[in-house]
Amino acid sequence: MSQQDIAPLFPDPAGGMARLQRYLDTSIPLVAHMQFRVAHLDDKCLSLSAPLQANRNHIGTAFGGSLHGLATLASWGLLWVLLEDIPDTHIVIQESRMAYLQPVKQDFEAMCLVPNRGQINQFRRALKRRGKARIELHAEIRSGDTLAANFTGYFVAVKAA
Amino acid sequence: MSQQDIAPLFPDPAGGMARLQRYLDTSIPLVAHMQFRVAHLDDKCLSLSAPLQANRNHIGTAFGGSLHGLATLASWGLLWVLLEDIPDTHIVIQESRMAYLQPVKQDFEAMCLVPNRGQINQFRRALKRRGKARIELHAEIRSGDTLAANFTGYFVAVKAA
Repeated sequence: MSQQDIAPLFPDPAGGMARLQRYLDTSIPLVAHMQFRVAHLDDKCLSLSAPLQANRNHIGTAFGGSLHGLATLASWGLLWVLLEDIPDTHIVIQESRMAYLQPVKQDFEAMCLVPNRGQINQFRRALKRRGKARIELHAEIRSGDTLAANFTGYFVAVKAA
Repeated sequence: MSQQDIAPLFPDPAGGMARLQRYLDTSIPLVAHMQFRVAHLDDKCLSLSAPLQANRNHIGTAFGGSLHGLATLASWGLLWVLLEDIPDTHIVIQESRMAYLQPVKQDFEAMCLVPNRGQINQFRRALKRRGKARIELHAEIRSGDTLAANFTGYFVAVKAA
């Protein structure tokens, strides 16, 4: 096992969550309206939460655009925290798929799974060596005990020239 | 050719656009923040437009959540207008796919293509007979001369019990 396999992925999860929240709040105006909150971060997942009220649709359940936006930002945010130590990195979404399984009738959460250590190391290495790297991420939307949606996103990280 | 093949799909496009705009504005709070406008409706497509400023992300281009939301609502809105004469119908998204091709650097538009007449007739017939129908829709995001994203959505219309 190398040094990078033993070191904790997030040495300062609370700090990473606070910095991500501040970054989302100050750089994407819609996030304030959606009232997304960075709820949890550990070596397994990053979660964002959202209140139903600000994100409701025409029939009083959660607006599909908010479900998709929360899953996208949970995934994007996980990469943001994972690459925080590599300066001048831009992360963009390239492709997404979402299956809406159940209507969301209360506050909800998007949980993006942390890829395994091998995938993360490969992703970070490619970014450092070639200035560009691609990764596939999976997220779930949950509302109470209900699995409400599945999300798959393909993201690209690019070092600014 | 039957009566329904000859009749115009949208006998009152301006009225349909105005009613859809009012419905979006009053029933989905986020639409007001995203400043989406119903821009065009004819037998070929429904377009919604959005300003970059209200929908910008961390690097000053359009937020992926807004691109996806606009494409989803252009598609959802097209079905809303197509089914306006069938009372108590709910339209929900079941699955979506989006490819983000180019960053969006100015105001943008989502254009959902009207399916062919046979598909529409079949969709409306299934909804009336069985109380439920499914349809696949395609939309594009354009910004100036740039094709910025491709969207595919699967929607279900259900007659309220």
